[in-house]
Amino acid sequence: MKAIALLGGPKEEWPQNLADKIKLAQKKGALIMASDRGSLFLLELGIVPDVALGDYDSLTNHERQLVERKVKDMRYSNPIKDFTDSEMLYYAAFIDYKVDDLTVYGATGGRLDHFFVNMYAVLKAPFASFKEQIKFVDKQNIVRFFGKGRHLISYNSDYKYLGIGALTEVKDFSIKNAKYDLAPVDLKVPTMYSSNEYLRQQAVKISCKFGVLIVINSRDKK
Amino acid sequence: MKAIALLGGPKEEWPQNLADKIKLAQKKGALIMASDRGSLFLLELGIVPDVALGDYDSLTNHERQLVERKVKDMRYSNPIKDFTDSEMLYYAAFIDYKVDDLTVYGATGGRLDHFFVNMYAVLKAPFASFKEQIKFVDKQNIVRFFGKGRHLISYNSDYKYLGIGALTEVKDFSIKNAKYDLAPVDLKVPTMYSSNEYLRQQAVKISCKFGVLIVINSRDKK
Repeated sequence: MKAIALLGGPKEEWPQNLADKIKLAQKKGALIMASDRGSLFLLELGIVPDVALGDYDSLTNHERQLVERKVKDMRYSNPIKDFTDSEMLYYAAFIDYKVDDLTVYGATGGRLDHFFVNMYAVLKAPFASFKEQIKFVDKQNIVRFFGKGRHLISYNSDYKYLGIGALTEVKDFSIKNAKYDLAPVDLKVPTMYSSNEYLRQQAVKISCKFGVLIVINSRDKK
Repeated sequence: MKAIALLGGPKEEWPQNLADKIKLAQKKGALIMASDRGSLFLLELGIVPDVALGDYDSLTNHERQLVERKVKDMRYSNPIKDFTDSEMLYYAAFIDYKVDDLTVYGATGGRLDHFFVNMYAVLKAPFASFKEQIKFVDKQNIVRFFGKGRHLISYNSDYKYLGIGALTEVKDFSIKNAKYDLAPVDLKVPTMYSSNEYLRQQAVKISCKFGVLIVINSRDKK
């Protein structure tokens, strides 16, 4: 099963026609999830999420009651906790609902402490096992994560640029078949190789023997 | 000497009254720097940067000529290069102009490969030595970096939240005097502790014995 999650990041960062995308996915059977203000955003779009979670600290009482009346699987977090909201969301998606693929909107822009907590969750157990099944999508970027091994980054004509980097220490990290290849290298600290591009509309090959890679498809603002 | 740099990120992420802030800083003797589209943005605001750099690939020929006519210290980069644009900018600031303090605007939002390359430069030699002198500022966040040792994060009434984390592997990382303290911990992978807060308007104390910490002052959208 596929899942779509809307987090509380600013609407200005959403990709175009997000409501239509989510409605279509829901029609096709995707699980719709939301955290915090994302729940309210979905209701405003006429979409009732299947799962809502968060401490709802950014919602008024009236807004929270609205969400509670509509959503079947409501989960409450608390600021002093083992899991952050995004971690609870990944837990619900991959462990409780056993989804194969999670697309996250609303994870970028706004408060950067939120962005980092959403992203770094993919480095921690038990979420690390699912990192290759998570992607963040906003209006200019798709962000994905890859563990050790070889990976194909399929050609995507909607995004001119590729940023490929190391989110952790990595060993034997290489990029092949791209405009700018990278011979195998060990990197002690996180590093980003930005503004790379596909070559002749072909998939790019990346690999590493240790660590976590981050791959960003990006495009300039229209 | 202080310096201010404007990178090419979207204007929507700028803090309020950015033009006034930069004009005032320039009047007080700050070095004004810009990379790529940032140069054009400054000219549009009626500010001539002292240093401009980049490959200018996002500018038309006409726009580039406009920048060239105005700016004294123009530096050109090239996509196949040792330094990225932000690295060239840090080099010019800290090594050539020997500035003590660099405030960077336009580093967030838009293309995330750019954001990561701007940020991860502070982990690499020779820029790593200057990481505590760099901060990124946008309309909702101030992002700073700290190496090993003890550091005081002064109270800032403009930002309710604090995100304090590890950008690399860290040893003996602790947070004291905050709403949520952290007892000394070794972290193998980057980690963010978000939505922390100051306690009784006092400075927060952070420390580590190895690695690089990231500190984000953040606030909700107004």
